[in-house]
Amino acid sequence: MATVQTFAADPGSYRHWRLDIDGAIATLTLNVDPGAGLAPGYELKKNSYDLGVYIELSDAVQRLRFSYPQVRAVIMTSALERMFCAGANIGMLAQAEHAFKVNFCKFCNETLGAIEDASDSGQVYIAALNGTAAGGGYELALACEKILLVDDGSSTVALPEVPLLGVLPGTGGLTRLTDKRGVRRDLADVFATTAEGIRGQRAVDWRLVDQISRPTDFQAAARRLAEDAIAAAGARPATGTTGPAGVELTPVSCYASNESLRYGHVRAEFDRRAGTATLTVSGPAAAPSSMAELRDAGAAAWPLAAARELDDAISRLRFGEPELGTWLLKTTGDPAAVLATDELMASADHWLAAEITGLWKRTLRRLDATSRSLIALIEPGSCFAGTLLELALAADRQYMLDGVFTSDPDERQPAVLVVGATNAGPLSAASGQTRLAVRFGHGPRLEAALAASGKELTAVHAAELGLVTATPDDLDWDDEIRLVVSERAGFSPDALSGLEASLRFAGPESTATKIFGRLSAWQNWIFLRPNASGPQGALRRYGTGQRADFDRKRV
Amino acid sequence: MATVQTFAADPGSYRHWRLDIDGAIATLTLNVDPGAGLAPGYELKKNSYDLGVYIELSDAVQRLRFSYPQVRAVIMTSALERMFCAGANIGMLAQAEHAFKVNFCKFCNETLGAIEDASDSGQVYIAALNGTAAGGGYELALACEKILLVDDGSSTVALPEVPLLGVLPGTGGLTRLTDKRGVRRDLADVFATTAEGIRGQRAVDWRLVDQISRPTDFQAAARRLAEDAIAAAGARPATGTTGPAGVELTPVSCYASNESLRYGHVRAEFDRRAGTATLTVSGPAAAPSSMAELRDAGAAAWPLAAARELDDAISRLRFGEPELGTWLLKTTGDPAAVLATDELMASADHWLAAEITGLWKRTLRRLDATSRSLIALIEPGSCFAGTLLELALAADRQYMLDGVFTSDPDERQPAVLVVGATNAGPLSAASGQTRLAVRFGHGPRLEAALAASGKELTAVHAAELGLVTATPDDLDWDDEIRLVVSERAGFSPDALSGLEASLRFAGPESTATKIFGRLSAWQNWIFLRPNASGPQGALRRYGTGQRADFDRKRV
Repeated sequence: MATVQTFAADPGSYRHWRLDIDGAIATLTLNVDPGAGLAPGYELKKNSYDLGVYIELSDAVQRLRFSYPQVRAVIMTSALERMFCAGANIGMLAQAEHAFKVNFCKFCNETLGAIEDASDSGQVYIAALNGTAAGGGYELALACEKILLVDDGSSTVALPEVPLLGVLPGTGGLTRLTDKRGVRRDLADVFATTAEGIRGQRAVDWRLVDQISRPTDFQAAARRLAEDAIAAAGARPATGTTGPAGVELTPVSCYASNESLRYGHVRAEFDRRAGTATLTVSGPAAAPSSMAELRDAGAAAWPLAAARELDDAISRLRFGEPELGTWLLKTTGDPAAVLATDELMASADHWLAAEITGLWKRTLRRLDATSRSLIALIEPGSCFAGTLLELALAADRQYMLDGVFTSDPDERQPAVLVVGATNAGPLSAASGQTRLAVRFGHGPRLEAALAASGKELTAVHAAELGLVTATPDDLDWDDEIRLVVSERAGFSPDALSGLEASLRFAGPESTATKIFGRLSAWQNWIFLRPNASGPQGALRRYGTGQRADFDRKRV
Repeated sequence: MATVQTFAADPGSYRHWRLDIDGAIATLTLNVDPGAGLAPGYELKKNSYDLGVYIELSDAVQRLRFSYPQVRAVIMTSALERMFCAGANIGMLAQAEHAFKVNFCKFCNETLGAIEDASDSGQVYIAALNGTAAGGGYELALACEKILLVDDGSSTVALPEVPLLGVLPGTGGLTRLTDKRGVRRDLADVFATTAEGIRGQRAVDWRLVDQISRPTDFQAAARRLAEDAIAAAGARPATGTTGPAGVELTPVSCYASNESLRYGHVRAEFDRRAGTATLTVSGPAAAPSSMAELRDAGAAAWPLAAARELDDAISRLRFGEPELGTWLLKTTGDPAAVLATDELMASADHWLAAEITGLWKRTLRRLDATSRSLIALIEPGSCFAGTLLELALAADRQYMLDGVFTSDPDERQPAVLVVGATNAGPLSAASGQTRLAVRFGHGPRLEAALAASGKELTAVHAAELGLVTATPDDLDWDDEIRLVVSERAGFSPDALSGLEASLRFAGPESTATKIFGRLSAWQNWIFLRPNASGPQGALRRYGTGQRADFDRKRV
């Protein structure tokens, strides 16, 4: 596969989607350019998709929230006749390496999560299936709150992965069928093994879609669903008194070289010999004095810019730097400025504050779901406070320097951690629990950490509260960090992926954790098996006219 | 690996465990016979285990509940000096096929689940680690309610799988660390990457063990923990007024041939061409008139005998018949007799009734976790009622004949299903939800099914309530079932395993579902990767003096 060079997109240059805004209703129309695949070797026929299609979708979903806050319902439909979307392109999957397939599914899942998350901001997605929605095409619909299917005697919804490809629906289809839509599990079994799919009234009866509509009435029906969703949702949350006025998402600019990625507030520096990327997030120079000031800064405002840069960096490193297996997470700046920014946004009751917080939440969840060892390094000059403390809490371990670096030319004071109100709710992990609750459970340890809110916690205090793993002093720091990094590099990367995924998703589960933890793991396994990816496997044989040749043994 | 011939064991012939009973306290002492492995090619040194060790443990755990109901606490310890248990034998794992490894872990996990489940019956397990507990050895301890570690300056608890073997702890260790014991996830990360483990006070501080004790005081400390557990538990539940008096678990006898397994109440008939095993459970001839009668029948009593036979058949087929990918589940007998037996046990407040119900619960959960397509066939003469209705609800699909077989020489009446009180709670799936709730969610569909309790539901009624997938009539029956079976045989068995695991664990999750669904899937994947199982992989290189040669790419 070609290396993915950018995760940025903008509507003016979309190749695969059209975004139309009509008052409170937006329409996202899928019209995949068959020749515009990210890599050579496959054609994106029948609105099938590759990563490029999803990068644009991810951009559109984000942009709708920031630039078009007046939009309350989004109709997702297709420009093709009798075909909504045929799912992930099989030629692309057949030629892709294992790691790419896994990361591709992950990015798609995160985008579908963002679609569902938009409902919390009062932007509700309606799937208007004007033709067949198969595989990943139907999974796109399942992420929407309502599904309308055209009743034209032929268009179906389908999950043909098991019968045709020997793999699972890779973007949450099975979980959403049962857990989100309440499809009976025996019917889900029949559905997911019926390659041709289900159409018409039976699709409604089985809860696969919410409504069907004749072609002549289809567009009106889609619009009615959008209007109903708007009416049901009531007032948009957190629009404040001035009403929404969108922020333009200007391109995220990144200076990328073989040694680093450099953004305005985020940089990632590579040590290829050690197998590390050091990700440093700079805090704000100062907090904005008001939401009006923050709003006027637009995409340049620190909390928005930093989140977008971090999000971009995570995706680039995931796809582009698989051998940098350990990420060292650092921050620099003034803890008070981060906390003041958090407090301004928390108290503002402003739509933009809600959107920025939501973006941080999704970005941090992307970090949680990243298959790299995450080690937070908390040093003098850092600002792990409030929103940025979550970076440390997302990490697998936290190392905090006890005292100062004696040879520090800047003579910086000892590092502190500060727990803020932001750590107690709005930036929850995929399970819906805060990262503090995932760490401590619900009990006295959590209460003690929350009771320390607002205090500048030095290494000793942070260790007492259990917020950090170890607190070496200046004498031991370099050796200890070097040891951790080299130890990590010596372990099986697969075992680390499984270990980290297990521990990061400690505690209660949600639909999202089931998709990221359980489904991903099954799919990882199935993708590797010869029955899928071997020369006689279903994924490789698809479209050749030859049937797959299965080893029929069950495990 | 040698085929496993039996899952039966009895204390008189244990090779690896000693079971001592002293009033309310039992002691299970691990003393593995190094030369008594199930297969040639490895030695079970340092109390390391293979499947045979776990088959005996499984027997002991079950036997304690049925034959020694007066036992209230079970101390698990070792006969070796400074070594509790070194975990699964690596030589055995290195030479095992993928499917065997997966099924081995599953069987071990089910046994650990039975240990935890025993607490509900007032038999609490105490791990008395008189020496090092490493890997699966520590996971055995984690399944106990309390862990005591000897404080001798050298004995540790450890999960060295990631650093030494490049795989995950395979029997729930990571999940139980965080979710059961509340170990902080960063400390769990350090612990699970520290090959030599943790000892002494630090093990207590990190919550890895509950208590440490000097060697001289060790046995007394273990006994105190057992006595405390008995005091804390209060009266044993459901012992009735007469007090417990054990039932001897006589050997399960099975006539096994290349075509079938035949037990008293269960038979499994193989169709190797179609790839099916037809499992038929016969209901009781009549319900016992009282618990005294049932008690006097002992291991021969229908509900106990049938559950033990079914449990044995599931394990044999899992390990021994991987190419029989579809199990057709049938019952024969009188629904009223099943329901009457259920009602007798539910109303008895008798320890034996609780134990039999618990055994059915665990056996049905074993069925849920079986990687085979399960199709229930509900025909005239069947008795899918109460406890046996759960067999149908555990299946991936339910086919019910509408009407009668016109050519039936016995002229049997149309089949009926009957929902009973047993379907509303005590036989819950691993998630803690009933199978009806997994099927219907919590809402009007579940209420309607429960409201039909006690009614004989014909095919039409069962279909209306959503209890069955399809109701072909005599004309279509054979063709439809043949089609389902041949379709299933044509699919990728790996994709089916993933599909079925996803749909069977619909809805909320529990520690057990995390272990069976998520951990198993990760482990399946990791076991397949060259980093673990390839010629240069960690599992194959372990003990050779050569380090594994990893592909460092993360996915």
